[in-house]
Amino acid sequence: MNILVLGAGQLARMMALDGIPLNLNFRAFDVGPATVVDPLTHHNYQQTLAEAIEWADVITSEFEHIPHPVLDQCQLSGKQYPDATAIKTGGDRRLEKRLLDDAGVANAPHAIINDEVDFVAAIEKLGTPLVLKSALAGYDGKGQWRLKSTDDANTLWQEISEFLSADPKQSMVAEQMIPFDREVSIIGARNHQGEIQTYPLAVNHHYQGVLNVSVVDGGQSAALEQQALTIFKALSEKLNYVGVLAVECFVVGEQLLVNEIAPRVHNSGHWSQQGAFVSQFDNHNRAVADLPLGDMQLREPTAMINILGEDTIDSAIYALPGCRVHWYGKEKRPGRKMGHINVTAADAASLQQRLEELAKLLPQTAFPGLHEYLALR
Amino acid sequence: MNILVLGAGQLARMMALDGIPLNLNFRAFDVGPATVVDPLTHHNYQQTLAEAIEWADVITSEFEHIPHPVLDQCQLSGKQYPDATAIKTGGDRRLEKRLLDDAGVANAPHAIINDEVDFVAAIEKLGTPLVLKSALAGYDGKGQWRLKSTDDANTLWQEISEFLSADPKQSMVAEQMIPFDREVSIIGARNHQGEIQTYPLAVNHHYQGVLNVSVVDGGQSAALEQQALTIFKALSEKLNYVGVLAVECFVVGEQLLVNEIAPRVHNSGHWSQQGAFVSQFDNHNRAVADLPLGDMQLREPTAMINILGEDTIDSAIYALPGCRVHWYGKEKRPGRKMGHINVTAADAASLQQRLEELAKLLPQTAFPGLHEYLALR
Repeated sequence: MNILVLGAGQLARMMALDGIPLNLNFRAFDVGPATVVDPLTHHNYQQTLAEAIEWADVITSEFEHIPHPVLDQCQLSGKQYPDATAIKTGGDRRLEKRLLDDAGVANAPHAIINDEVDFVAAIEKLGTPLVLKSALAGYDGKGQWRLKSTDDANTLWQEISEFLSADPKQSMVAEQMIPFDREVSIIGARNHQGEIQTYPLAVNHHYQGVLNVSVVDGGQSAALEQQALTIFKALSEKLNYVGVLAVECFVVGEQLLVNEIAPRVHNSGHWSQQGAFVSQFDNHNRAVADLPLGDMQLREPTAMINILGEDTIDSAIYALPGCRVHWYGKEKRPGRKMGHINVTAADAASLQQRLEELAKLLPQTAFPGLHEYLALR
Repeated sequence: MNILVLGAGQLARMMALDGIPLNLNFRAFDVGPATVVDPLTHHNYQQTLAEAIEWADVITSEFEHIPHPVLDQCQLSGKQYPDATAIKTGGDRRLEKRLLDDAGVANAPHAIINDEVDFVAAIEKLGTPLVLKSALAGYDGKGQWRLKSTDDANTLWQEISEFLSADPKQSMVAEQMIPFDREVSIIGARNHQGEIQTYPLAVNHHYQGVLNVSVVDGGQSAALEQQALTIFKALSEKLNYVGVLAVECFVVGEQLLVNEIAPRVHNSGHWSQQGAFVSQFDNHNRAVADLPLGDMQLREPTAMINILGEDTIDSAIYALPGCRVHWYGKEKRPGRKMGHINVTAADAASLQQRLEELAKLLPQTAFPGLHEYLALR
């Protein structure tokens, strides 16, 4: 079976690595240059998108910021899973908020801002502090502003109105800032038959808006896990979703508030390569290729540490028990996601110990998020 | 780092799948057509062997029956690990037997046969029953004869002399037939620094000369495991070996008798993809690429079942807990190694149970070796 992935980055790469053993063949559409390439070697197949669509049995995506004409062209083939609507929803906070509300899923009170009247109304409705996020193309903390108090409203509006006027399709989504206890991800899959399975909740630690560490150690309450499953079910059914879907949530007391969704495999699910029996990449492939979903239970407590802007690590890490390093074959650039380290242990306490050991080999300057995470525990 | 693999079959494929996450790049030299291809997609790079050698930082092999001129050409580059001598030894039972004797490693009493005088002398020296194996190009039970009693000697000699006269480089190796309790594999790695690690012993079940099932459940005695390490050390040091080496042994009481070696990753090590933290493929790559070896301890008891001559299995298998299916992307042919299934469980008893469950979905006609293995327990 032939799978065309929209996007040719590390997520397509890891989907291919897990899918090839199931005799799935992969090509990736690199959206920037509009080339069709091998997701592992980047060999250029010299194909048009139309030819690649023809080649494919299934089309899927590794990210949500894909030009709509590309999504629409793929959708016409009837081979796209998740479908264009799901991808567009993940790429536009206006659609995303409407989905959350339509599905009856708890999320932060919010308002859409297109002009100064909306801006003033949003402050009135939601109060301060506020987070303002661009509706389109925002990720890893980009396209975000904060309004601490109404004193700063005028200054901020100058900045935002400039941003909005640059792109007529753009809006802002204002959200009440929620003081949360921690951030977690729900990652699961829904298949063609509507069957649903979820991985245990991953606890995420961000640093400067970018995910640095995800930990899955089975330490979340059964009530929270149950709530996560209910949310996942509501959202994936509303979208008639097929594939792996990621849902980022704030935990406030014993309640989950959905922050955002990603209609694809997700950075906070990379732990599953070692920590679960069947990884998120494998399960995404299975869902879209109509193969049975595989076991998502926690095999052993596992933490994932992003390698950002570095292309080497202390080689002693390769020999540490329970450690596996995954590089993405990318050229080094400051802050770029270059790879990740999964570390696994028999129980949560040993995992913590292994993380402490590992942190000694990962300098604070290059891994500030890991060191902050450990300091906060 | 660029790795050229001699051979473009499933072993090169699985080496690439485990090596790409370490930013290793792979090309494979397909010995038959003498083409340089991608080991995963079989894309033809339109390179000569000389160009591929130039491209490579390291050259390694996925099998031992490689034309000597190819091995010699690679050896001249100074990049070949394990080296040409090790590969040639694995491909010639005469050299192999000499290695075992030189390393002081216990093996079946044997004699080399080039003509009728040798044949008669071998029977005299070793008695009957005897196993006769071709020195070159024998594997999976091919090129083997048995002499039950001296009554059959003349008839057998006719057959063997015909076989020998077809190839002047060929000889036979006669071995005393050893009544053994079971067959096991020692799989381990030696790196550039001479460091050695071994996986726990795999217990192998052959059917009609072909490996059908390997089980690693930690059930072999500490004394046997220690003996295995000693044998592995003696052989790999004698060869100044770098990479993963497999050693097939007969267990007779509490003694290991070496049957044969394979200077490469081995079918009886496929269990390590799920049963160990770092697989044999990953560790082979690490050894030849001069990265630290990874953890070879048993993570959980695991069995490997070969899929021979079949290109589909009951899809329910994909959903069984602890099951992972690995296909090789090959065209179906009777008896051909098409893929394998790894099944993992928390302990030896649960593994046995899972194997029984699995066997219900794998028909006797297509998986006679698995059913025979289970019946014998």
